[in-house]
Amino acid sequence: MGNQTIYFKQRPRIVATSTVAGTKECEGVIGRYVETALSDDMYGESTFEKAECKMLSKVIDGAISNAGYKREEVDMIVSGDLLNQIISASFAARDFSVPFLGVYGACSTMAESIAVAAAFVDGGYCRRAVAATGSHFASAERQYRYPLELGTTRPPQAQWTVTGAGGALIDRTGDGVKIASATLGKVVDFGVTDVNNMGAAMAPAACDTILAHFRNTGEEAEQYDLIVTGDLGALGSRILKDLTWEKGLDISKNHVDCGEIIYNVIEDEFQGGSGAGCSAVVLNSYFWTKLMSGSLRRILFVATGALLSTVSSGQGESIPCIAHAVTLER
Amino acid sequence: MGNQTIYFKQRPRIVATSTVAGTKECEGVIGRYVETALSDDMYGESTFEKAECKMLSKVIDGAISNAGYKREEVDMIVSGDLLNQIISASFAARDFSVPFLGVYGACSTMAESIAVAAAFVDGGYCRRAVAATGSHFASAERQYRYPLELGTTRPPQAQWTVTGAGGALIDRTGDGVKIASATLGKVVDFGVTDVNNMGAAMAPAACDTILAHFRNTGEEAEQYDLIVTGDLGALGSRILKDLTWEKGLDISKNHVDCGEIIYNVIEDEFQGGSGAGCSAVVLNSYFWTKLMSGSLRRILFVATGALLSTVSSGQGESIPCIAHAVTLER
Repeated sequence: MGNQTIYFKQRPRIVATSTVAGTKECEGVIGRYVETALSDDMYGESTFEKAECKMLSKVIDGAISNAGYKREEVDMIVSGDLLNQIISASFAARDFSVPFLGVYGACSTMAESIAVAAAFVDGGYCRRAVAATGSHFASAERQYRYPLELGTTRPPQAQWTVTGAGGALIDRTGDGVKIASATLGKVVDFGVTDVNNMGAAMAPAACDTILAHFRNTGEEAEQYDLIVTGDLGALGSRILKDLTWEKGLDISKNHVDCGEIIYNVIEDEFQGGSGAGCSAVVLNSYFWTKLMSGSLRRILFVATGALLSTVSSGQGESIPCIAHAVTLER
Repeated sequence: MGNQTIYFKQRPRIVATSTVAGTKECEGVIGRYVETALSDDMYGESTFEKAECKMLSKVIDGAISNAGYKREEVDMIVSGDLLNQIISASFAARDFSVPFLGVYGACSTMAESIAVAAAFVDGGYCRRAVAATGSHFASAERQYRYPLELGTTRPPQAQWTVTGAGGALIDRTGDGVKIASATLGKVVDFGVTDVNNMGAAMAPAACDTILAHFRNTGEEAEQYDLIVTGDLGALGSRILKDLTWEKGLDISKNHVDCGEIIYNVIEDEFQGGSGAGCSAVVLNSYFWTKLMSGSLRRILFVATGALLSTVSSGQGESIPCIAHAVTLER
């Protein structure tokens, strides 16, 4: 590197995916593509955190069985989530007798886990791995913001944490979506301190990784059907388009953001969806289906994460962000 | 796998390390081996969390410069810590313009980050990477337990979170300690719910990974000068010896635990040290030096982590644990 881009020689492939999403999420564009649509966001559990963990366990299991494998045929689970100490991922992994690598990249986790799993599969260190992540609106609200019972007013620049999870089974061979390369992100901090404006905080990280990707690969934006960011939301997407344009890269024609498209009517959600589950659900339902069917040929999937905590913000720190990109093609 | 053990064909090597440790830690056996001994555990910062982050930044920088590299010659930082949203690692990575993979494995992070970095280096995805982690007694106490000001009595089975950090520069070639293999752990939960008894909770995970390692490799315990666990403490170490013995593996002759040996006089610390910084400091100071000098030829480094959070314990969950092992040889 110097060069942040990794090329996968064998092009490991996502041969199966699995997704769960909440009621509000399934009203939107992904509704028809999600495998398990919840009728109740508690998912039969007694707490939001347990519901989040159950979603993650469900999609890990689903990705394995949808690929026609048994659990013991899978060599690794790479997963993380937004909760303190990534308890959703760790407790979900407890249900599987499979080696586990816990990762943390906030909402960039779907791309990070795909990149790590792809490197282990491509390098010959394991036969196949599951990459998965998720989030839950209610567990995120009470951990990062306010108890829902307070009914705190949300500012217009806020986004809505997606209730949902997505998992992908990455195999060495087979019929699937190929992972051609990964561009690993650096931590970027433009000094944004407004914890309600994640889109503005994350856009510079997305810009940095996208520019690095095109600089390293020598490709043009037009070589991708879509450049898909994770959860910048409407405002963050506009900022990203401006930032890349200023640097001489025009992505306005083929850029789309999972957070911007996930909800049907943008009303309470203001700028759109966020959370690790946002890009996980949209990628593993809608985009995976479109790639498998041939409607899309090649996308750059750029998941973005805000690496703050309530403690760091409370101590006056700004919000460091990161974005990891993977090239997915059929 | 099925087989949890990964073999690194090129045997990437730890060509340099860097460590920082607190005042109490430097009174013990590692005192002579630690690179930077703090005279004040606040490390000139205004908060414990900022001190923890500064330690991590210091050892990442130290590992790079001790290896004779510049920051731009390093392709990846793999790091995590115990704080919510791994802010120490993320904020430390902000200081470096280097691609960052955030990982979370609680106190198993040193082994997890070495395994991930070694796979990326060995697989040819990057030239060299830094693996690093750390912890701080005061930030861990207030996040996981009680405010220090309360002066809460510690039960006898408790351990003392190490104030310290360690980093290792992993290179493809050069003079260093070779990373021959990694055995990635599964999440193991024996139903322990006592958050003050991490040693008992983690010992079964250490046992599971150690047994898997010897089963997969066909090696004998005697082929290692030492089997070094991360931070089981005195009680956890005894449990581990019993558990492995019951399964037909006798490690009593060459097992040592970083948590058990780090403090000079075990008094307030009861069972010894814990925290991600515990095994990070002991490995990267004491053991790395002993391996480089030839006093030790070959060790199995097994870092152990308890994957709980205050929320999971508050919701009545037991403590899932994990252990990752790496074979280090000269």
